[in-house]
Amino acid sequence: MKRGLSLTSDSPIRVGVAGLGRAFVLTLPSFKADPRVTLVACAAPRQDSRDTFVQEFGGTAYATVEELCADPAVEAIYIATPHQMHRAHAEAALRAGKHVLVDKPLCVSMADALAIAETAEKTGRHVIVGPSHSFDLPVLKTLELIESGAYGRVRMIHALNFTDFLYRPRRPEELVTDEGGGVVFSQGVHQVDIVRLLGGGMAASLRASTGQWDADRPTECAYAAHMTFEGGAFASLTYSGFAHFDSNEYCGWSGELGHTVDPRNYGAARRALMGMDDPSAEVRLKAERTFGSSSALPWPSENEHFGPVIVSCDHADLRLTPLGIWVYGHTNKEFIKVPVGPVPRRGVFDALWAAVRENMAAVQDARWGAASLEVCHGILTSAREGREITFEHQVPVRR
Amino acid sequence: MKRGLSLTSDSPIRVGVAGLGRAFVLTLPSFKADPRVTLVACAAPRQDSRDTFVQEFGGTAYATVEELCADPAVEAIYIATPHQMHRAHAEAALRAGKHVLVDKPLCVSMADALAIAETAEKTGRHVIVGPSHSFDLPVLKTLELIESGAYGRVRMIHALNFTDFLYRPRRPEELVTDEGGGVVFSQGVHQVDIVRLLGGGMAASLRASTGQWDADRPTECAYAAHMTFEGGAFASLTYSGFAHFDSNEYCGWSGELGHTVDPRNYGAARRALMGMDDPSAEVRLKAERTFGSSSALPWPSENEHFGPVIVSCDHADLRLTPLGIWVYGHTNKEFIKVPVGPVPRRGVFDALWAAVRENMAAVQDARWGAASLEVCHGILTSAREGREITFEHQVPVRR
Repeated sequence: MKRGLSLTSDSPIRVGVAGLGRAFVLTLPSFKADPRVTLVACAAPRQDSRDTFVQEFGGTAYATVEELCADPAVEAIYIATPHQMHRAHAEAALRAGKHVLVDKPLCVSMADALAIAETAEKTGRHVIVGPSHSFDLPVLKTLELIESGAYGRVRMIHALNFTDFLYRPRRPEELVTDEGGGVVFSQGVHQVDIVRLLGGGMAASLRASTGQWDADRPTECAYAAHMTFEGGAFASLTYSGFAHFDSNEYCGWSGELGHTVDPRNYGAARRALMGMDDPSAEVRLKAERTFGSSSALPWPSENEHFGPVIVSCDHADLRLTPLGIWVYGHTNKEFIKVPVGPVPRRGVFDALWAAVRENMAAVQDARWGAASLEVCHGILTSAREGREITFEHQVPVRR
Repeated sequence: MKRGLSLTSDSPIRVGVAGLGRAFVLTLPSFKADPRVTLVACAAPRQDSRDTFVQEFGGTAYATVEELCADPAVEAIYIATPHQMHRAHAEAALRAGKHVLVDKPLCVSMADALAIAETAEKTGRHVIVGPSHSFDLPVLKTLELIESGAYGRVRMIHALNFTDFLYRPRRPEELVTDEGGGVVFSQGVHQVDIVRLLGGGMAASLRASTGQWDADRPTECAYAAHMTFEGGAFASLTYSGFAHFDSNEYCGWSGELGHTVDPRNYGAARRALMGMDDPSAEVRLKAERTFGSSSALPWPSENEHFGPVIVSCDHADLRLTPLGIWVYGHTNKEFIKVPVGPVPRRGVFDALWAAVRENMAAVQDARWGAASLEVCHGILTSAREGREITFEHQVPVRR
């Protein structure tokens, strides 16, 4: 089951999972493959998901996150519940002495985000906000290239992503912005994470517009944002989840999860929803994508990505691709390969291992997650009020 | 010489050219090929350019634009002199009763732009600001598709271009922003023209940042801008002329002028300047690209373009390519071919013909050019003052 990953020997981190929905399904191949983690417990409201979990992994299955947090066998809890529940679940875990891996976004409201960060600091436990595409290996490699100093200062970042996000099966609340629905919280936060990571973290100002173009799905389906950083760098972030153009075409037809995308499947997301005239049918379709119902994800052949990203530095443009980084220098270009894996989402578990076993905080800790969330709120506020936003909770890249 | 273009018969427009520099070289293939125009006179300060002109086209060569304007054989004057001279030359032409085709940007200062527009209105002569990439046939076809109403409203526009502009040979003033140098006036105005044309013309607000990343070439080499339109659409515009990544890669390796780009020539622009330690050497290199010195441009195999542009509408994303428009609808995508030519820059001469022979004003008239220039100044001002800009001189697409 566990593919080889050479590590200084230590016992795998005993992880309990809160929530066996789509987020868990997307990270499951990594849990199965990475020798540094072992699934020992879960919490899920549905009996059949719990049964499947125990069948597959053994361990203990609880009906509530509170019970999971009380399990002494658990060292760290992966919070993969809906966004609105993240604060309650993260604080329960931290107070029970567990480390926390909380799926992005950290939560929905800034008050919740700051509360989680304070609780983490009080309890001395680690919080890692992930998986997020800021853990993708080409992103981390780009950060390493930037930090080497070889390319001078980061000057401009361009990030673009066109997907079918709005037309993937949704529960009703996923289409309500105030409950964390729409593209800004679920998708924008990936892009903000990546851009902040490569730009140094300290967003200074933002001007954005958002789009709500489908009255039947009344939440943000797209945005464009202009962001400045302290120190003078700036960034352009554009996202559309409106299921028309697919920017995987700019990534060699490699999809977000590192799987080959077949352009002949054009329109599949919208087609799957057609003829569904009540929300419950869509909820059932969504349920088919959760743990125990969905088929296993294929093993990725390339690194995960979140659309084309170009980082313009003094001495080179660095262009991220699923297979590595194009470095466009003054007179030469070179391609720096970024090998896949050896396990998917390796960057997330590198960070989890460093935190839990080596007491090294991740860059993407609770304060980081709060800062990225602040930018997401900035996108919404700037669009709603038609003005530029400045920030108060930004943190630099610390590592 | 003149390739076939079927037209209702009328005599070709008798054009006089003011300035035989690089701009003229880039439009020369069109003048030679389009049966609707004939070159009858020129004005240029250099004797050898004038001699070459007369050798090649006959007609009359003048040392000054004022003399050219007095030539009764001339119906329209193509102003291809440096930007700072556009107002004087345009007003001289208009007052002499000539129509004016003035290379973009219309001029450098807003005062000059508004003065040209007023003079055009007083004299009743037409001004067309072009060539500009807003005349590229895929852009005009996209406008036609939008105006058909088949795709609903324009919601979001994304425009991107990464070139080697800053490292093409330059006269010193082309590296001084106040004299119209840098990427914003010479290149940004193309992008602004395209985005305004497809977004309806009425820019409402803008927030931008610019980059000056090479102390030896102290003018803007890049910018990113967030623009809103009246009515709610918004746009993201990004440009780098810093000669690293080449976004022709996103356009099937077709270059700005419709010629195939060989990616193996990476770094050519910067390499050509290396070892030049005084500006005069670069000025000589620039002179080699002007009329009489440069070799003829090859015939374009695809349409000209200004980088990838994606227009998101209610019912489809329209993606412009040098060969046509990708239309990404709800469940199907289709490619609408845009045939090349039959002559290069056909759109410009379509507009010139309509203006001079049919008295139909171009969309890209002096007021339009002033409005695009206002956005360019907005980019510079927003970047310099770190604030959002609103506009006073915008005009809608009128046709």
